[in-house]
Amino acid sequence: MVFIYTGDGKGKTTAAIGQAIRMIGYGKKVLIVQFIKSDVWPSGEEKTAHYLEPFFKIKKFGLGFVTSDSNVEEHKKAAEKGWEYAKKQIKSGKWGLVILDEINVAVSLKLLRVEDIIEFFKNYKGKSLVILTGRGAPKSFIKIADLVTEMKEIKHQYKKGVVAKDGIEY
Amino acid sequence: MVFIYTGDGKGKTTAAIGQAIRMIGYGKKVLIVQFIKSDVWPSGEEKTAHYLEPFFKIKKFGLGFVTSDSNVEEHKKAAEKGWEYAKKQIKSGKWGLVILDEINVAVSLKLLRVEDIIEFFKNYKGKSLVILTGRGAPKSFIKIADLVTEMKEIKHQYKKGVVAKDGIEY
Repeated sequence: MVFIYTGDGKGKTTAAIGQAIRMIGYGKKVLIVQFIKSDVWPSGEEKTAHYLEPFFKIKKFGLGFVTSDSNVEEHKKAAEKGWEYAKKQIKSGKWGLVILDEINVAVSLKLLRVEDIIEFFKNYKGKSLVILTGRGAPKSFIKIADLVTEMKEIKHQYKKGVVAKDGIEY
Repeated sequence: MVFIYTGDGKGKTTAAIGQAIRMIGYGKKVLIVQFIKSDVWPSGEEKTAHYLEPFFKIKKFGLGFVTSDSNVEEHKKAAEKGWEYAKKQIKSGKWGLVILDEINVAVSLKLLRVEDIIEFFKNYKGKSLVILTGRGAPKSFIKIADLVTEMKEIKHQYKKGVVAKDGIEY
């Protein structure tokens, strides 16, 4: 099955990670393939992953945010490497859940081709639940998904002086 | 701070649990107070919680789904007990995150009074991040929240024959 968590609201990646926690409860293994995100910031989920080894593996392929100064070709290469790795791991059938974190963003930035992803998933009957996260999932992704939730921002107004706190934003 | 995850789409409780995983990564403790849900079904997150002790505690106050046959007074008592417990724990300041799981549902079923919850949170400046989950959060909750995400169901069409799989639905 394929789930998509998209939209501009908070909760997409965390929903995928929460799903991971359920899976691990049943003794199934979880792989997170991260696009876009790089090692620049440590992340809480990565730290917790160590407690949950060998059930929880995180593999990063992002080079960080794509800015006007970025070398787009290098970002493309990194994203494609991540996608090749992800396909192989999904086909292996050894994961209960594979999270393709921020892949929707990688697609909307044209680091990955939307057709390649649709081609892979359109008749997907593999054992792993696959979750695609990130804002801006193309409409055409809805067809290949079993479940799509849009995380819609209704309010986002942190109390003054609080920008990004450990464990909340990352 | 207070976050609300509401809406009819999948991902509300899992987003809160994903947030828990981030918190735990920073050595902070997480408490989940569950309303509505009972022990009828085991849940994956509860099983994983054991791996993460003493960082992760789940406390259930629900009696299961409220049906036309239910004794509403008993459900009310259970919900109120949960709410009293939750307030005390939030005030204690010892939790990095307190998740009030399905509390929005408890409120919309009138097991808890909306005014009591607003009264408690309207000037909330405590140390714990508090997340309220469940569909049907009253509009008045938006005022007391720093962040509100509506999980909107865009598609939910599991492949034939798959109803609820271990680690996916619970």
